[in-house]
Amino acid sequence: MTATDDLTYNNARHAAQSGGTDLKAEPRLRTAVLTCMDARLDPYAILGLGIGDVHILRNAGGVVTEDVLRSLTVSQRLLGTVEVVVIQHTECGMLSVAEEELKLQIRQDAGVEPDFSIEAFSDLDSSVRKSVDLLRRSPFLPHRDGVRGFVYDIRTGLLREVL
Amino acid sequence: MTATDDLTYNNARHAAQSGGTDLKAEPRLRTAVLTCMDARLDPYAILGLGIGDVHILRNAGGVVTEDVLRSLTVSQRLLGTVEVVVIQHTECGMLSVAEEELKLQIRQDAGVEPDFSIEAFSDLDSSVRKSVDLLRRSPFLPHRDGVRGFVYDIRTGLLREVL
Repeated sequence: MTATDDLTYNNARHAAQSGGTDLKAEPRLRTAVLTCMDARLDPYAILGLGIGDVHILRNAGGVVTEDVLRSLTVSQRLLGTVEVVVIQHTECGMLSVAEEELKLQIRQDAGVEPDFSIEAFSDLDSSVRKSVDLLRRSPFLPHRDGVRGFVYDIRTGLLREVL
Repeated sequence: MTATDDLTYNNARHAAQSGGTDLKAEPRLRTAVLTCMDARLDPYAILGLGIGDVHILRNAGGVVTEDVLRSLTVSQRLLGTVEVVVIQHTECGMLSVAEEELKLQIRQDAGVEPDFSIEAFSDLDSSVRKSVDLLRRSPFLPHRDGVRGFVYDIRTGLLREVL
């Protein structure tokens, strides 16, 4: 039994007990949340979210990449969201990544090196600022006034607004 | 009051009641889940996940992009995950996107056009297959045997394995 097998078993039980939903695709709160993939950060719990409330985007770090701009373009232009909440967090794995070392490891192991940035960062507040700035300056997003950036404290469960 | 204000209010209540966590960053199930940003899809509920279990990556469609490869590179090489669960879903917004029309709308509105693909797709199973194939062929990921792809049915709550 793999972990994936366990998760599909859980799903069968979930579907039998709760079924699906007949909600439409447009998020009820007209908001998109961008945060980190970190296993310890459950955006539903920390923001009190319900099913259908918001779009949730997650990647390593919760940083703004081309993929995030793509997703938010769709979110705002086709699915009606107007606010963006950026949440990065304390003790993030991306804070301790030695980007050049990791790339060297990959080159030695795989024979090729990624041509993309690992997007490691050394200062949390600066990283949140950078991500929020990238969104506020993106011509692809029609709604840029409602972009706000936060740091989530893994130990206390509290958000702190950066900008 | 904006929706973001409401969410920060919810967070203060959450932190007071539940606090944070002292778990470490490595996901307990050594698994990463890639799925869509869709507001109707709560991966914790549909997979029976608890805090600390898995990395969760989300974007428009749940498709494999450079950002997903970046995030999974970090997930597998630095944080110990070995399985990947790709979940796309019925009634996905990306199924009905007229990519050229959207790009034209953006050009007319913003004066510039994204140089990235919107990653719209017309067939769900093919899209899952393409995403899984991209992961299984990526030299940056050391663990490619445990990549599996599913379609989630929004109406029934059930996962169906594609490959």
